[in-house]
Parts: sequence; structure tokens; C-alpha cells
Amino acid sequence: MNIGFIGFGNVSKKLAGLMDENAILTSKEGRSENTVRNIDESKATVLDSFEEVARKSDILISAASPGESVKIAEKYGKLTKGIYLDLNNISPKTAIEISDKVNNFADAAIIGGINRDFTLFLAGENSKSLKFLDKYFPVKIVSNNIGDASRLKMLRSIYTKSISAVLMEVMEVAESLNLKDELMDTIAISEGENFKDSAISRIKNTKNSSKRKKEELAEILEYFPNENLEMVEAALKKLSDI
Amino acid sequence: MNIGFIGFGNVSKKLAGLMDENAILTSKEGRSENTVRNIDESKATVLDSFEEVARKSDILISAASPGESVKIAEKYGKLTKGIYLDLNNISPKTAIEISDKVNNFADAAIIGGINRDFTLFLAGENSKSLKFLDKYFPVKIVSNNIGDASRLKMLRSIYTKSISAVLMEVMEVAESLNLKDELMDTIAISEGENFKDSAISRIKNTKNSSKRKKEELAEILEYFPNENLEMVEAALKKLSDI
Repeated sequence: MNIGFIGFGNVSKKLAGLMDENAILTSKEGRSENTVRNIDESKATVLDSFEEVARKSDILISAASPGESVKIAEKYGKLTKGIYLDLNNISPKTAIEISDKVNNFADAAIIGGINRDFTLFLAGENSKSLKFLDKYFPVKIVSNNIGDASRLKMLRSIYTKSISAVLMEVMEVAESLNLKDELMDTIAISEGENFKDSAISRIKNTKNSSKRKKEELAEILEYFPNENLEMVEAALKKLSDI
Repeated sequence: MNIGFIGFGNVSKKLAGLMDENAILTSKEGRSENTVRNIDESKATVLDSFEEVARKSDILISAASPGESVKIAEKYGKLTKGIYLDLNNISPKTAIEISDKVNNFADAAIIGGINRDFTLFLAGENSKSLKFLDKYFPVKIVSNNIGDASRLKMLRSIYTKSISAVLMEVMEVAESLNLKDELMDTIAISEGENFKDSAISRIKNTKNSSKRKKEELAEILEYFPNENLEMVEAALKKLSDI
């Protein structure tokens, strides 16, 4: 089976490595130095153009950047007769838009860290024929509705970002009372030993990428205008305080 | 050693049972039918009055109800030469108030469920002489500052109540998208197998006692007027929507 990649960043590199008993196709056409290095380190067959990659692929994976996803679908996605997967962390709205442009779209989202534990969530009619990928990594089919994989990722993001905001808030108060370690210990009683490390890494992570996380929270509020998202709104305010 | 109890509800019953190699003292003076049954089921020595309990105790534990804590301290706490513990879930302010009324106050808070895993947190100079109680159940000394045990409990309450509000919010959206089970599964990837049961029980618990939890959140906001508690404020709003 031919599995083509448009874009060869961390996600593509990892997935290509896990699936390399298949023929991995990609191209260096217009790619950055980093990407070319990733390709050289992989077992990918390098074709002259992404057009050729698209035409030869049984599965075509777009993993470049969210901003390019629609353009890539228009330019290459419509050329493939295979199944088209978009792993650009797109919104449910964009997933539906792209599914109209390509032949066999499967809605997809990677949940978890690509270099730790991740699961590939799939949605839509075409996802059934991708079930065999669970030989290589965990795969879950969410539903037949295009957009549900990205919706699920969005919901998970409501959870993780709001939790990080709660942690930031309570740890700040605890610090001012000189009770930070003690609080970590008392929460660990119910949340388990792992709590402390996970809390510290969540707070650090949120502070380091607060701009992007604020954008994602704003997107969530925009996507669900009719829900009472008080906690998401407060998390956005909290991140704006940083 | 004589350990006296004023009030003999669930907390006292449990602690008395765990410590009953000591002499457990209490009184039925003015107590309810339920309390009298708890006393009869325990190994407590029943004295005629709480005054007598107070005078004979090396450790005197007040565990009746938060509203009565100051009154009990004034009436009986000042009679004891032993260490006085208040387990009425009092605020840090009340802890300081009571410590002025009794001879040897130790600030105390039970964190966790009394019938599951709990730890007795202690603060203040007198807590050192209670360290031996860790023969019977987990004990942690927080600091020498009266109020820190209750402050710690309050901080933990910020965490647990805000987390419950986040769970309520995200599960409501997930339900409207028909993705509730799927969301539980995706969060469990990072939070562990236990996540689903814990989330369901937190949401149920919050809905069942939303009135009390709202009061506790309002108390927290009142106690920390100068902190930016956006998540706590949002949690209070969320609970008001129930």
C-alpha cells in the first residue's frame, strides 16, 4: 500500500516510521531544510512533486500547518483516488469544508502527544477502511459524522485548558500563603501520585504557550456561541493575566 | 490517655473507633437519638456532662457542626488542660478566634473522606504533641501557623470544586454533540483509567449538594478578596445554573 505525506514535520515523521512496512511517499518540493532532514532520516520514497505523491497514494495524509489545510486539499487532495486525511489540527468547520473538496475524506485528529501516547481518532464513512492502521498505533472510530473527530479534540481541549487555568489559579494563591507543596500533597491524596508532576508541567506549558492557547480558547467560544461556557471564558481571562 | 469528644457524629465515631486503645470519653448530654446510637455502638465511656469530659481529657475534640464551634470552645474548650482540636470544618478566621479562647489549641482539618482515605492535617505549635496519632491514621503537620490547616482545606476546595465545574461544563457540551462517552475515553488517555468513574461521581456529587458548595465557594471569595479568582467566580456561576 502507498501512503503519501504532504508535509514531513514531527507528526509525519513519527507516523511514517510506525507504518514503514508500507511504501511511504513524499516530496521535497518547496520544503524547508528541517523537513528535508526528516525525510532523509526516514524510509520514504521521494517523488518529484506532491502532484505525483497525490496520484500514487492509497492514503494521502496532509500534515503541514492549519493555515494551509484548505489550500493543500484544493491543490493535491482532489487529485488522489485514495483516502484523504487531514492532520493539521483543523476546526470541525474546516473539516466539513475540506470533505467537500476531496473524493474520500476521513475526519481525523491525533489526541495525546505524538511522541508519547497518542490515539488517532477518525470520523466519517471512510474511516472504516482505515481501521487496519491499528496494527501500527491506537485507532478509534468516533462516528460517521464528518467533524466529530475535530469536535472531540475541541472538547478535550476545553477540559485540558480549563484544568490548567484552575491549577494556575489555585497554585498562585497557595504560593502567596506559602502552602504550595502542602497543597500538592493534599490533592495527590485523591488524584494519585502522578498529580504533582502533571500539575507542574501543565502550568509551565500553559505559561510558555499562552498566546496560542488563548487563540484556541477564543476559537472554542466562537464555535459554541450558544453554550454557557463560563469556565472557558474564565480560563481565557486567566491566560490573559499572564 | 483520655480522648474526649464533644459531638459524636460520623467523624467522631470513626476517629474514636480508630483510637479506642485509649480511653474514649463523651457525654449524651442534650444529644440526638442518632448520636446516642453512635455512642452506644462505640467503646466510649459516657460521662454525665461535657464539662466533665472537658476536664478529664488530655485531648478534647470538638466535632459537632461549624455553627456551634465558637460556642463549644467558649463553654467547654476553656475548661480543658489538654489539647483542643476543632474538626467542625471551620474557616481560618474561626480557627484563630477559637485559639484565643482555649488553652492549647491545635488547628486541624480532615482532608479526604472520613470513611475512605483521609489524612488529619494539623497546624500550630501544639500539633507536634499530636504526631503520635499517626499510629491510628495518617497525620501531617502543615506548619506552626494557626489557620494553615483550614487554609489548606480551603485551597483544596478551590481545586476540587472548580474541577467539578469544568467537568459539568464540558460534559454538557459533549452530551449535546452526542460525544460524551467518546470524550470520557479521550480524557482517560492522559488522566488514567480511573477518570470516568471519578468524573461521574464528581458531577453527581456537585449537583446533589450544589447549595452547600455554592456557599463554600462564596466563602472562599470572601476570604480572598484580593486574589484574582476568576475560575472560582465562574464555578459559582456554573453552580447557580443548576
